[in-house]
Amino acid sequence: MSDATVNGDRLWASLMEMGRIGATEKGGVNRQTLTDGDRLSRDLFVDWCRQAGCAVRIDRLGNIFARRSGRDDSLAPVLAGSHLDTQPSGGKFDGAYGVLAALEVIRALNDAGVETARPIEAVSWTNEEGCRFTPAMAGSAAFAGVISLDDVLGRADRDGLVFDDELTRIGYRGDDGPISRDIAAYFELHIEQGPILEARQRTIGVVQGAQAQRWFDVELTGQESHAGTTPMITRRDALLGASRIVEAVNRTGFAHAPDGRATVGQFDVRPNSRNTIPGHVFMTIDLRHPIEDALTAMIGEFEAAAQDICGELNLDIEIRETARIAATEFNDSCISAVADGADALELEHMDMVSGAGHDACHMALITPTSMIFIPCKDGISHNEIESATPDDCAAGCNVLLRAVQKLANAV
Amino acid sequence: MSDATVNGDRLWASLMEMGRIGATEKGGVNRQTLTDGDRLSRDLFVDWCRQAGCAVRIDRLGNIFARRSGRDDSLAPVLAGSHLDTQPSGGKFDGAYGVLAALEVIRALNDAGVETARPIEAVSWTNEEGCRFTPAMAGSAAFAGVISLDDVLGRADRDGLVFDDELTRIGYRGDDGPISRDIAAYFELHIEQGPILEARQRTIGVVQGAQAQRWFDVELTGQESHAGTTPMITRRDALLGASRIVEAVNRTGFAHAPDGRATVGQFDVRPNSRNTIPGHVFMTIDLRHPIEDALTAMIGEFEAAAQDICGELNLDIEIRETARIAATEFNDSCISAVADGADALELEHMDMVSGAGHDACHMALITPTSMIFIPCKDGISHNEIESATPDDCAAGCNVLLRAVQKLANAV
Repeated sequence: MSDATVNGDRLWASLMEMGRIGATEKGGVNRQTLTDGDRLSRDLFVDWCRQAGCAVRIDRLGNIFARRSGRDDSLAPVLAGSHLDTQPSGGKFDGAYGVLAALEVIRALNDAGVETARPIEAVSWTNEEGCRFTPAMAGSAAFAGVISLDDVLGRADRDGLVFDDELTRIGYRGDDGPISRDIAAYFELHIEQGPILEARQRTIGVVQGAQAQRWFDVELTGQESHAGTTPMITRRDALLGASRIVEAVNRTGFAHAPDGRATVGQFDVRPNSRNTIPGHVFMTIDLRHPIEDALTAMIGEFEAAAQDICGELNLDIEIRETARIAATEFNDSCISAVADGADALELEHMDMVSGAGHDACHMALITPTSMIFIPCKDGISHNEIESATPDDCAAGCNVLLRAVQKLANAV
Repeated sequence: MSDATVNGDRLWASLMEMGRIGATEKGGVNRQTLTDGDRLSRDLFVDWCRQAGCAVRIDRLGNIFARRSGRDDSLAPVLAGSHLDTQPSGGKFDGAYGVLAALEVIRALNDAGVETARPIEAVSWTNEEGCRFTPAMAGSAAFAGVISLDDVLGRADRDGLVFDDELTRIGYRGDDGPISRDIAAYFELHIEQGPILEARQRTIGVVQGAQAQRWFDVELTGQESHAGTTPMITRRDALLGASRIVEAVNRTGFAHAPDGRATVGQFDVRPNSRNTIPGHVFMTIDLRHPIEDALTAMIGEFEAAAQDICGELNLDIEIRETARIAATEFNDSCISAVADGADALELEHMDMVSGAGHDACHMALITPTSMIFIPCKDGISHNEIESATPDDCAAGCNVLLRAVQKLANAV
C-alpha cells in the first residue's frame, strides 16, 4: 500500500513527554478534564500538530481536530484519536496512546511524503473519563448527537464549577461552528484494559464491537436480630440472600463465557454489627454481553435466581434498572482494514469485543468505525501502574497507519 | 411449699413506672449505665427496696444488693436479679424485669408472712449492657473475679468520661467492703430475647446454660479490576469468595442445629464501586454452641471451607480469632428448682440454652446458678419495640419465687 512506517521511538518519546503532565509519584497521571493539567496536555498536543503541518480546529466543547489535507479536501475526512484526560489515579496510556498514535500516523505520512485521497484528522475528545463531569465520553456524545451541547456545557463538578466556565478558563472554548459533520471513518487505538491479549500472546486485538450493558440496584430486606438467640431456622438473613445472589450473578457470567461479564461491585450491609444478623443489603449488579439477546438471557437468569433465593429465605427484594447501554457493532470495512493491516505486518492478532465504553461507541452511531487494541501489563488500567511496551505501542500504531490510509484512499 | 404468690399487677405497675425513666418516643428506653437516667432508676429501685423492709448495700462498683433477712442471717444468701441499665434504644424488659421480679419475690414473701432459712437479696448489677463502657457485664464480672475492680473503674467512654468519676457523680460509689462474698445460689429471670418460647408456645424456659462463643475477623484479598474488560475466568473476586464463606458459615450453623448459631454480621467491600470487581472484603464470623466440642467442630468446618474457597478462587485469606467465651453449664439443683416450680404452677416449660451473655454466666463461675426465660414478642430485644405480656411476666416471677424459696430453705 505504501512505504510509510511509524517511528516507534518518536511515538514513545511523545507518550513519555505527555505523561509528565500531571505525573503522580507512583508513575501514573492525574489529568482530569478541564483542569490546568488538561490545558497543558492540550497545549502540547496542539503545538505538536502544528509542527506536523496540521490545521487545528477547536470546537465549542473543546474537542481538538488536527487536519492533514488530502488530495481532495472537499471529501469527508478519516478521523483517528482518543482522549487526553485521565482518571484521578490513571496511567500514561489510557487515551493518550490513541491521540498520540493518530499524530504519529500523520508524522509518518509526512516523513514518507505519502498523500491520501481524503483528509486525515487526529482528534482528542473532551471529557472521556467522566470522573469530574458526567457523563463520560461527553465530547463524542455531543458529536454523535447522543447528548445536546447545552446539556454538556451546563454540567457542574462536585465543587459546583460549571463545565462551560472551566472550558473557557483553560482557553479551549472553541468556535461556534457545527458540533458535528460528515466523517468518512473513525479509528481508535487503545490499550485493551483487560488481560486477554497478554494471556493469548497476541499483539493486536481486532475489535468487533462493544458490549451491551445493564446496571441494576438491588435491595434486600429481612429482619435484623440477635446472632446468639435467633435459631438458624427462623432467620431472615439479608446477607445470606445477597451472598446467594452474588453466586447466581457469577454463575450467569460463566454460563455466557467467554463474552459475558457479570459483576457485583457495590455491597452495603446494615446494621453491619458483628453480633447482629443483617436485616438489609444494598448491592449493585453490572451485566455485559456483546449480543443483546444474550444479555437479555443473562438478566432473566439473574432476576429469576434472585426471586427464588428471596422466596426461599423469606426476604423482600427490589430490583431497579439504573443504566442501559446498547451493544455496539463496528463496521466491517473498518474491521477488515485493521485485520488486513495486522496481517500485512505479520502481527499475531485476534478478534475481540471491548468490555469498556469508548468514544468509538458514539462514533459508530454516525460513521464507519472500529478499534484496535494492544496488550497492557496484567490487564490493569485506571491505575497508576498501567503499562504497555514500546514494541506493542509501535505495532498498534503501524496497524492504525495502514487502516487509516486504506479508508482515506477509499473514495 | 408455701402459699406465697406474686402480685402480677404490682409487678407490671413497677415495670411500667421504671420504664418511664429514660422513656423514648417509640415506647422504648434509653438508660445507659451511669447516666442521669441510670441514677433515677437506681433511686427508685432503692426506695422500693427500703419500703419492702430491705437493708440496701451499694458496693464499690455501684452494684445494689437489697437484703431480706433469713432465719439465720449468718448463712450465705440466695441472690436474684439482673440489671437496670439499657441499650441506647432498648426496651422496658431487658434487665429491669429480672431486677423488679426479684423485688416482687421479696414483696410477695412479705405479704404472705413467709420466712426463709437464708437471707434473700435482690441485686441490680452495674453496666450489664457494655454499650457505654466496656466490658459488658462488668459488675458481675468483678464480683466473680473475672476482672479487677481497678480495671472496671478506670475505663473511659467515647467522650473520655471515666467510669469511677461517673459512678461518683451519680452518687453510687458505694462502700469499700469486699467486692465478692459467699453466695448460696443465684437466679436470673429474663425475657428470652429470641423466638423459641413464643414459637413453641411455652411460658417458661428452663435455662440449662449459655453458649460458648468464638468471634473471628476474616480478610480476603483478590485483585480489583475492570468489570467490563476482565473475563470471568481470570477474576480474583474477593466478594465472590466472601459470599461463598457466608454460605459455608450458614451451612455450619444448620449442620449443628438447633443449638448451633453461625452468623456473618459485618461485611465491608473495597473499593465498593459499581463497575469494579472487588479486590478486598473484611467480614466477621460469630459462632456459638452450648457444647465446646461442637463449637470446635463448627470452627473446623468454617475454616476448612474458607481455605478451600480461597484456594479455588486464588484469594489470600487471613483469619484472626478476636473473642473466646467458654460455655456455661448451670447448676443442676438450681435448674431442678426452676423446673419443679414451673411444674407445680402447671406452666408449660422447656429446656433451653441462652444464646446471649448474662450476669448469670459470671455468677455460675462462683455459685450454683440458673436462669428462667419468658417469651418476648417476635423474639425481638435490644429494640424499642421489645415486648412481653403481663401474664408471662407474672408466671416467670412465680417460678422465680418458688426457686428462690427452695434454695433459701436448703441448709
